[in-house]
Amino acid sequence: VNGLHNLSEPNEQQSHGELFLTEAFKVIVEEAVRKGTDVNEKVCEWQEPEQLRALLDLELREHGESHKQLLQRVRDVAKYSVKTNHPRFFNQLFAGVDYHALTGRLLTETLNTSQYTYEVAPVFVLMEDVVLQKLRSLLGWNEGDGIFCPGGSISNMCAMNVARYWAFPQVKTQGLWALPRLAIFTSQESHYSTKKAAAFLGIGIDNIYHVKVNESGCMIPEDLEAKIVLAKSQGAVPFYVNATSGTTVQGAFDPLERIADISERNGMWMHVDAAWGGSVLLSQKHRHLVSGIERANSVTWNPHKMMMAGLQCSVFLLRDTTNLLMRCHCANATYLFQQDKFYDISLDTGDKSIQCGRKVDCLKLWLMWKAEGSQGLAERVEKAFAHTSALVEEMKKREGFQLVSEPQFVNVCFWYIPPSLRGKENNADYQDRLAKVAPTIKERMVKQGTMMLGYQPLEGRVNFFRMVILNPQLTKRDMIFFLDEIERLGKDL
Amino acid sequence: VNGLHNLSEPNEQQSHGELFLTEAFKVIVEEAVRKGTDVNEKVCEWQEPEQLRALLDLELREHGESHKQLLQRVRDVAKYSVKTNHPRFFNQLFAGVDYHALTGRLLTETLNTSQYTYEVAPVFVLMEDVVLQKLRSLLGWNEGDGIFCPGGSISNMCAMNVARYWAFPQVKTQGLWALPRLAIFTSQESHYSTKKAAAFLGIGIDNIYHVKVNESGCMIPEDLEAKIVLAKSQGAVPFYVNATSGTTVQGAFDPLERIADISERNGMWMHVDAAWGGSVLLSQKHRHLVSGIERANSVTWNPHKMMMAGLQCSVFLLRDTTNLLMRCHCANATYLFQQDKFYDISLDTGDKSIQCGRKVDCLKLWLMWKAEGSQGLAERVEKAFAHTSALVEEMKKREGFQLVSEPQFVNVCFWYIPPSLRGKENNADYQDRLAKVAPTIKERMVKQGTMMLGYQPLEGRVNFFRMVILNPQLTKRDMIFFLDEIERLGKDL
Ligand SMILES: Cc1ncc(COP(=O)(O)O)c(C=O)c1O
Ligand SMILES: Cc1ncc(COP(=O)(O)O)c(C=O)c1O
Repeated sequence: VNGLHNLSEPNEQQSHGELFLTEAFKVIVEEAVRKGTDVNEKVCEWQEPEQLRALLDLELREHGESHKQLLQRVRDVAKYSVKTNHPRFFNQLFAGVDYHALTGRLLTETLNTSQYTYEVAPVFVLMEDVVLQKLRSLLGWNEGDGIFCPGGSISNMCAMNVARYWAFPQVKTQGLWALPRLAIFTSQESHYSTKKAAAFLGIGIDNIYHVKVNESGCMIPEDLEAKIVLAKSQGAVPFYVNATSGTTVQGAFDPLERIADISERNGMWMHVDAAWGGSVLLSQKHRHLVSGIERANSVTWNPHKMMMAGLQCSVFLLRDTTNLLMRCHCANATYLFQQDKFYDISLDTGDKSIQCGRKVDCLKLWLMWKAEGSQGLAERVEKAFAHTSALVEEMKKREGFQLVSEPQFVNVCFWYIPPSLRGKENNADYQDRLAKVAPTIKERMVKQGTMMLGYQPLEGRVNFFRMVILNPQLTKRDMIFFLDEIERLGKDL
Repeated sequence: VNGLHNLSEPNEQQSHGELFLTEAFKVIVEEAVRKGTDVNEKVCEWQEPEQLRALLDLELREHGESHKQLLQRVRDVAKYSVKTNHPRFFNQLFAGVDYHALTGRLLTETLNTSQYTYEVAPVFVLMEDVVLQKLRSLLGWNEGDGIFCPGGSISNMCAMNVARYWAFPQVKTQGLWALPRLAIFTSQESHYSTKKAAAFLGIGIDNIYHVKVNESGCMIPEDLEAKIVLAKSQGAVPFYVNATSGTTVQGAFDPLERIADISERNGMWMHVDAAWGGSVLLSQKHRHLVSGIERANSVTWNPHKMMMAGLQCSVFLLRDTTNLLMRCHCANATYLFQQDKFYDISLDTGDKSIQCGRKVDCLKLWLMWKAEGSQGLAERVEKAFAHTSALVEEMKKREGFQLVSEPQFVNVCFWYIPPSLRGKENNADYQDRLAKVAPTIKERMVKQGTMMLGYQPLEGRVNFFRMVILNPQLTKRDMIFFLDEIERLGKDL
């Protein structure tokens, strides 16, 4: 039978493992860090899916591979991946690399613990608390609560769930059948996570009232009031308004003071989705964009976006001091959150989360903050704004660049009008032809690997580019390159 | 005004950054990898919270710190963190380190992309697909769907949401008000994430019917049938049964064939929470524990647990071939999922997720699999089972160790009965005194840092230990040490 014999093993595996790790790290630094940030290297190495599948040999087989083959795999994965650290990656609301944050991420991965209890994550329980406190203090809150979530969408979902529980605590036990129909308010240009949240939480997307925005994409408070009246007249109970600070496409800031007035008057929970724009709070010069945010009941803020902490890093912050988050989310699992522990069990914060195992997301942000100081982080934000206005100024000098709206933030939305279309605004096919310009330029830039930039249609406006400026490693040269490159890629269209 | 002047910057920052990263990596390897896996080092360095706060100096300040100070911070974070890689960490359902998986994690962090589109994650979109396919094939499915989620709790939530949409698609638009009251079935010993899901999805935890389990913790199918009848008699619509393969505490496997019969007969969605036990599928010898799993509609499986891929790594797998996952979760955001792209947009799988930005969680698992092969992974599972039965055998030889139940899996649940309590089972205070044994031993082991092990009460049984064996680096010596150490720490109680 099974004795304990033959279950011993030499430590060989361990030293082999460590050797592989160390060698692979060199490859990672070379390929993903050094080349990945080198402006003379490509930002992406486009391959057709079929080709890439063949190159990568992804299949998982019965037997393992050699040390050498595995190192080559590390190299290949790096080679064919998009270099989001690259100074010419403008495709998403994250970009660039912060070396201290990256160090924090590597340490997090190596320590591989879960954030639920003080017992298994003593450092990170205390650290999360300090980081949340710091972020709250920037909002203007001396007290409050919060938690790191796996992304802004889930932070926004948590906000909606906590708001619902705050308004109707019986929902946790009895479900929505015990409640009147609920109504949610958010702007037309707000992020789609509000839609996903309404569906997931069982509220239904038809119960979202989309509030109109102005030209720049900011919520029109008068229309919010009108929509609240409408919802009530349809028998629904307005309980939640989602205001956005920094919309995804245009970078618009909703007027928080006005929205707070309306929310208060109507007894609604006001959530601010500052996933993207929250970082303006770091700068004395630009924080006015979110004035009124201190009146919100809760805020989502993604340091993995503008602050460059690395994916995933998102916080859900609350002004509440009544332990609402815990009461709403707790399940009191006795196998994990024992009540007879030898230390202060209020440090076991895991039950505030909708998760069980929870990745440590605070260390990267904390280490970066320790390295940069609040001042260094503020400078980055200010630099991004300065780059943005410089770019806009330069664009205005060039024929062929047409702004969608004057930027409030670091999103620059514009059409590139190729020479063949200039002055043809009144032609019947102008919009159709313009709509095809951005996708074609995009295809060319990706296939050549010179830069990456997103485009989209929006509320009746045909495809336009969204340039996003956040990487402090950007230089004047990169901005000029950017404009020249769009012209180079699009002038024949 | 703002020109583009003064926005240039030397590349100095970059080379400083890289230097820091490289030096910090050495510290990480030394402190978190080498010492972290050394059986002669402590598994944890217990500090009272107040003391630890002072030692770490967590506060975030105006100014940044020096290179040297920051390196010290890396060292301190590692020092005071629990060494989950350590061979004597038995506290959770994850433990140990796989060096290839860790390499995959470091590469993931360095590449820092989001899993939503082929455009920004070409390698990982293809890789996720292959890994999901492989995992499905182990379930016995040639087709199907799936997605990586941030943890098993969220995978389980997605299962419940997809099931609800499958049964009542109008829920996505109209919410639960358009539906009859729903009923959920799960065993008494199932994971608490079903509770969190029911609350979060707006169904309410009172609409969960807890099915009785036998001594070992396996769901009793007759009681499932009875509970379905009960729910119907109370006017609720049974739509979802959650069966568990590998319960959290006892490691029990619910009888899937029987549950599948009942689910089919009642037109219910059958989900299998195999977050913990799914890995038995890797072993021909042990996969019988989940026979019938191929009849499930969906499965949760956490490779970050027994497979040692590292947190977070969880998959939600579906048998469906009708694009249900996408239809249920999609929000069709045009800024991200443009329809006029130059490549096959079915590769933009991000809208299947409830998230927007989504961490890459497939690479670590893929690289580990490439290194070990299916065979190597199977051997690990078999080794864990072998260690478990050897430990149980040894326990039975020692006075003072009393099993809670015969293990089905690699969880060994037991009471340690100190000499003073032996033979006193009939004393009035026996249970009260026994309940205090595990917490006291736990406190002692943590303060001495010799090992870590969890305990809990369960369904009327007072505090007992749960030993979890999964780390392939364990040796016979570690098992003997484990038993000796419990005796050493508890014999005076
Ligand atoms: C059976 C079972 N299901 C689900 C989960 C939740 O997984 P996660 O911690 O990844 O959320 C666990 C966690 O231990 C579990 O044991
Ligand atoms: C305004 C806004 N809110 C929320 C999110 C969602 O954040 P995440 O991608 O972390 O889910 C985004 C993402 O771009 C966003 O722009």
